[in-house]
Amino acid sequence: MLNVDVLIIGGSAAGLVAAITAKSNNPDKSVMLVRKEEKVMIPCGIPYIFGTIGTSDKNILPDGGLKNLGVEIRIDEITDVDAEKKLAKTASGEEIAYDKLVFATGSSPVIPQWLKGTDLKNVFTILKDKNYLDSLYHAFEGLKKIVLVGAGFIGVEVADELNKKGFDVTVIEIMPRILGLAFDDEFAAPVGETLEARGVKVRTGVGIQEILGDAKVTGVQLDNGEKLDADAVILSLGYRPNTSLARNSGFSINEYGFIVTDQYKRTSKPDHFAVGDCSEKRDFLTGKLSRIMLASTACAEARVAGLNLFSLSTICTFRGTIGIYSTCIGETACGVAGLNEATAKSEGFDVVTASFTGVDTHPGCLDCSQKQTVKLIVSKKNGVILGGETLGGRSVGELTNVIGFAIQNGMTVNDLLVAQIGTHPLLTASPAGYPLIKAAEIAAKALKNA
Amino acid sequence: MLNVDVLIIGGSAAGLVAAITAKSNNPDKSVMLVRKEEKVMIPCGIPYIFGTIGTSDKNILPDGGLKNLGVEIRIDEITDVDAEKKLAKTASGEEIAYDKLVFATGSSPVIPQWLKGTDLKNVFTILKDKNYLDSLYHAFEGLKKIVLVGAGFIGVEVADELNKKGFDVTVIEIMPRILGLAFDDEFAAPVGETLEARGVKVRTGVGIQEILGDAKVTGVQLDNGEKLDADAVILSLGYRPNTSLARNSGFSINEYGFIVTDQYKRTSKPDHFAVGDCSEKRDFLTGKLSRIMLASTACAEARVAGLNLFSLSTICTFRGTIGIYSTCIGETACGVAGLNEATAKSEGFDVVTASFTGVDTHPGCLDCSQKQTVKLIVSKKNGVILGGETLGGRSVGELTNVIGFAIQNGMTVNDLLVAQIGTHPLLTASPAGYPLIKAAEIAAKALKNA
Repeated sequence: MLNVDVLIIGGSAAGLVAAITAKSNNPDKSVMLVRKEEKVMIPCGIPYIFGTIGTSDKNILPDGGLKNLGVEIRIDEITDVDAEKKLAKTASGEEIAYDKLVFATGSSPVIPQWLKGTDLKNVFTILKDKNYLDSLYHAFEGLKKIVLVGAGFIGVEVADELNKKGFDVTVIEIMPRILGLAFDDEFAAPVGETLEARGVKVRTGVGIQEILGDAKVTGVQLDNGEKLDADAVILSLGYRPNTSLARNSGFSINEYGFIVTDQYKRTSKPDHFAVGDCSEKRDFLTGKLSRIMLASTACAEARVAGLNLFSLSTICTFRGTIGIYSTCIGETACGVAGLNEATAKSEGFDVVTASFTGVDTHPGCLDCSQKQTVKLIVSKKNGVILGGETLGGRSVGELTNVIGFAIQNGMTVNDLLVAQIGTHPLLTASPAGYPLIKAAEIAAKALKNA
Repeated sequence: MLNVDVLIIGGSAAGLVAAITAKSNNPDKSVMLVRKEEKVMIPCGIPYIFGTIGTSDKNILPDGGLKNLGVEIRIDEITDVDAEKKLAKTASGEEIAYDKLVFATGSSPVIPQWLKGTDLKNVFTILKDKNYLDSLYHAFEGLKKIVLVGAGFIGVEVADELNKKGFDVTVIEIMPRILGLAFDDEFAAPVGETLEARGVKVRTGVGIQEILGDAKVTGVQLDNGEKLDADAVILSLGYRPNTSLARNSGFSINEYGFIVTDQYKRTSKPDHFAVGDCSEKRDFLTGKLSRIMLASTACAEARVAGLNLFSLSTICTFRGTIGIYSTCIGETACGVAGLNEATAKSEGFDVVTASFTGVDTHPGCLDCSQKQTVKLIVSKKNGVILGGETLGGRSVGELTNVIGFAIQNGMTVNDLLVAQIGTHPLLTASPAGYPLIKAAEIAAKALKNA
C-alpha cells in the first residue's frame, strides 16, 4: 500500500495547478498526482492541433513543473475512493492511503442520447485525450466534408482550423448565432462573418435530427427536413463533469451534475476537495449554480484548494465564477468577461449598456491597426460593471482581462471614468479614445438619464 | 467681448477630453476651446511620424468629437487671465468672459540652460507642434548622423524610428541604462539590446558636456572627454509644465513648477481648474508630489475636471497618479504600472519582488509566440501590489493595464492568487502558466518566508 499526504486525481490544468500549489506551499508533504493519460493535452490548445499547431505532440502540458517540485506522477486510474478510510484503489490494483484528496477529474463531451447515429464510424467528439485526438486526426485523411454540430468556442475554433487544412466544413447551430451563449448578437455576428469569409459554411437556427449512414457517416438530417452530405461529424455540444467516481463514492452531486463544493473547494466529506470542470460553480454576481467550465477558472479553483488543504485561510476563498472567455478567428478576436446583456437581463438585472468603437492603435492608420469595440453591461441601480464584451485585434485577449479585473473588484462606471490606463501608439487605443473608458462615459450618461 | 460658460485653454489630449466631458455632461452650457495650433499632434504618436507613420499629417488629433458636440474651437493664444473678473484676453485682441476655466496648457521640452550649443542650427527638441516637427523632418533630409540626448521613452522611440529611416543614430544617456527611470534593470536591458540589434548605437552612463559646432552642429562633447560627430542633435531630456500664463495670473505653482490642484483638479482660485501636464500630480501610493506626465493620466484628470465643473461629485475624484507606461521596439514590448523595485525601495517601501517568465501563447510553439515576463513589486507588510513590470510581445500593452487595475483597486498577492483571468491559445499565456499569477505565487511564498 502506498501512503501519501495529498492525492490528486486528474492531470489536466486543475490537477496540475492543485498539485503544484499543494506541494510548493507544503514542501514537507508528499503529493501524488494520478492520471490516466501518459501525455496530457493543453485543453484550450486542442482545436489548434488540427491546423495551426499541426500535431498533438506540440500541445502537451509539460510535467517539468510537477517533477521539479517533487510531485509524484502515476499513470493509472483511480477506480474507488473510500472517503471514511481515506483509501483509494487504482485500476492496476494499487491501494493508496492519503490524508487529503482532490478530485480534478475534468469533463467529457456531451453525446445526446436521443440522437441517432452517434455510434457510426467517423462520428467524433473533441475528447481531451491525445490518443483519441490522434486517431481522429488520422481518420480525417482522405475525407472531404466535415460537419460540426454545435457552434460554441470549441466548435467554431475546430471548424476554422479544419477549414484551414482544406476540408469542406459546415457548422450547424440551433441558436440564431454562433457563440450565442457567450456573446450578444453584435459581437457574435462579426465573428460568424469572418468565419464564413474564410470558407466555413455556417448554418444557424437549425438543429440536427439524426446522423445518417450505414456503419459509416454519409450525412446529417437537419430538423428543417434538409439533408447535408458528410464524411465525418464532430459533435461539439458542450461538456459534462466527470463525476462517476465521486458519485459512486458517496459524495454529494448538485442538480447540474457537479461535485458539491464550498468556497474553499471542499466537498461534502472532510479532507476531500474538488476543483475544475468536475466541481460545483457558482456565478460571481448572482451566487447561482453555474455550468461554466473554463481552464482559467479551474486554475483559480485549484490554487484555492491547494492553499487551503491543511488549514483554512480566510483570504484565499473563491468568490464565484466569472466567465472570462476570448477567441480569435483569423485576425478578428473577441472576448467577454462577466455577464453579457442577454444573460444579465434574463438574470433579472436592470441594466444600461454602452458600446464604443475606436481603433486599437493611435493614430489608427498603422499597418497593424484594427477597429476595437467595447461594450459594457452596467447595473442601473448602482453603476456596477456586470460584464463587458470586446471585439478587435489580438490585444482584446488581455483587454478582456482588464474588464475581468474591473468586475472582480466591483468597479463602477464612475470608477472607470477616472481609472488610469497606460497607452502606447503601437500597443493600445489612444488615451482620449480608449474604448473601455469611452464606453464608461456613455454608460455614465445613460445612467444619469435613466 | 465673447461670453462662454466654460473656457478650456489648450487642445491636446487633456484639453480635448476636458472639453468633451464638460460639454457632453452639460449640454446646455457653452464650451470654448482655445488653442494655438491649427492641427494638434497625437502626443504619443509623435515619435512614429519619423518612420512608421511617415508624416505628421496622419498623426492629427481629430476635431470631430468636439465639433459634433458643439464645442467651439478657436485658434488663438490666451495671453492673460483675470481670475477675479473671470476674463481672458487673447493674442488676437479678443476678450472672453467665462464662468469656469480649465488650464490644459501642456508641457514643453526641457533645454538645459547650462548646456552650450543648444542654439546651433540642427539642434532640436521633440516639441509637440506640427509645424515645428515638419520643419525638423525636412531639416533631416540629407543628414547622416543624429545624436539623441536622453534615453527616456521619447528618446528611445525617436531613435528607433530614425534608425528605421536609415539615419546613423546614437543615443546618449547619463543613467546606466536606457529607460532607467521607468524600468528596473532587467526590463530596460533587453529593450536596450533590441535597440542596439536594430542598429541604434546606445551610449549609457555618459552625459553630454557641450554641443559642438560653429553656427551648425558638428558633434557633441561627452563628459568623459570623448567627441562624437553629429549632423543633428535632438534633446530628449524630459518636459516641463507650461505654466507661465497661470503663474503670471497669480495661480499657485508647486515646487516642481506645476499648477497646484486639489483632488477635483481645482486650482488655488475658485472656478479655475487645471488638468494634464501643466497640473499638479501626486503619487497614487505615497501622495507625494510627482513629475509624471502621461497622456493617459491627463485624460483621466480631464474627465475629473469636466465632471466636477459645476458641482462636485464625491465619487469622481482623482486619487493620485499611477504611472502606467508601455513601449515597443520592434517586436519587443514592455510596460510598467506603479512603482518599479528601485523606486519602491527609494520611497521607503519594504518590498518583496517576484518574476516569472512564460510564453504569451499556449502552447508556446506558435509562429507568433513570444516569451513573456511579469515582475511584481509587493509590500512586505500587507501584500499589496505596489507595481508591476512586463516584457514580451504586443499583448503586454493591455497586460500592463491589468496590473494597473490591480494597483488601482488595492489588490494584494492573495487576491491575485485566486483572481480569474481569461486565456486563449492565440491571445494569452496559458491559465496554468500565466506569468502575472505565477509571479503572485512566487511573491506569496516569499511573503510567507519573509
